[in-house]
Amino acid sequence: MHDNTAPPNVTVVQVARPSANVSSTFFGTVVVIDDLITEGPSPSSKVLGRGQGTYIFDSMNTVSLLLTFTAVFENDVHNGTLSFHGADPILQKKREIAVVGGTGVFRYARGYAIIETHTFTYATTVLLFDVTLRR
Amino acid sequence: MHDNTAPPNVTVVQVARPSANVSSTFFGTVVVIDDLITEGPSPSSKVLGRGQGTYIFDSMNTVSLLLTFTAVFENDVHNGTLSFHGADPILQKKREIAVVGGTGVFRYARGYAIIETHTFTYATTVLLFDVTLRR
Amino acid sequence: MHDNTAPPNVTVVQVARPSANVSSTFFGTVVVIDDLITEGPSPSSKVLGRGQGTYIFDSMNTVSLLLTFTAVFENDVHNGTLSFHGADPILQKKREIAVVGGTGVFRYARGYAIIETHTFTYATTVLLFDVTLRR
Repeated sequence: MHDNTAPPNVTVVQVARPSANVSSTFFGTVVVIDDLITEGPSPSSKVLGRGQGTYIFDSMNTVSLLLTFTAVFENDVHNGTLSFHGADPILQKKREIAVVGGTGVFRYARGYAIIETHTFTYATTVLLFDVTLRR
Repeated sequence: MHDNTAPPNVTVVQVARPSANVSSTFFGTVVVIDDLITEGPSPSSKVLGRGQGTYIFDSMNTVSLLLTFTAVFENDVHNGTLSFHGADPILQKKREIAVVGGTGVFRYARGYAIIETHTFTYATTVLLFDVTLRR
Repeated sequence: MHDNTAPPNVTVVQVARPSANVSSTFFGTVVVIDDLITEGPSPSSKVLGRGQGTYIFDSMNTVSLLLTFTAVFENDVHNGTLSFHGADPILQKKREIAVVGGTGVFRYARGYAIIETHTFTYATTVLLFDVTLRR
């Protein structure tokens, strides 16, 4: 999943934050995302879908997110969606988030994903998702 | 579910959006809803409960929502809630969203709902939900 | 779970609300939380983790929330997270919310929690959670 925070291909927008000064952990900041999902970490690898939803900075002591979004797949391999909802302490190299439901070929799916930060630059964060599901 | 965006019976309120110009797909706009849920598409049909939560415009290329809300039922047929969390590409006639949990008579429920736009006018959108559940 | 709305140990921040006057039910107000979770109702009892996420006032007729957050446990008893997503009509003494997923020792968890308001003062609300899970 490719999260681009700088031009030319921005895929995120900040929509809310506290009215007072924002803390060093961005506590309370709300961001909406429409990230590209590809098969591999290169943005030019096969497109699988989009990661659409929101992340909310919800820690006062570290940089951590409530990551709540849908992976929308429309391609020859998968046709359906997966709903993610969980904590994403992004400073950790690997972390785990819950998969809470799905549609299409993913009906009744639930499980978890190991998220790993593959690349983190000023403009782009590339996240690897290793997803385990059952019905 | 009756989503009323114009007086006299408004059931939605916009609470956040990007500080810059909002795009043609309303990307980043956050709306809170308290919609009436009735048995049939007429607002005067039997009341089943309320659909309460939020939708977030989360696509840069089309008009699509992250729809995350609870259907709260309090009546002689059902007493409990269902939690919905998924993508709602509202321009499609039919689309599918995940049901990720429930309470009361719907404890341990999960499944999916086919959403169909029954009516779409300036003031009111009426959505039909065909819900399939298992435990 | 200890929800502190006044100094010195504030654990919540308001991040969005309607631009017009806010109603008596706070309809549309969005709050981000980073609450302490302890074993008992005393804030000095054993720390179990943090409740991180958001609540959204989503009723026009009463004070009720969409409560969507993750309980993050990091201790000798539990290591993992639970994702909550449901309606919380806070004026009721007891209410029920769905648990929609988990990670770590809570992988594949789902179920429900009975929430009871133990203490409600100007500065602090203490909530008791009685959680029932299955896989």
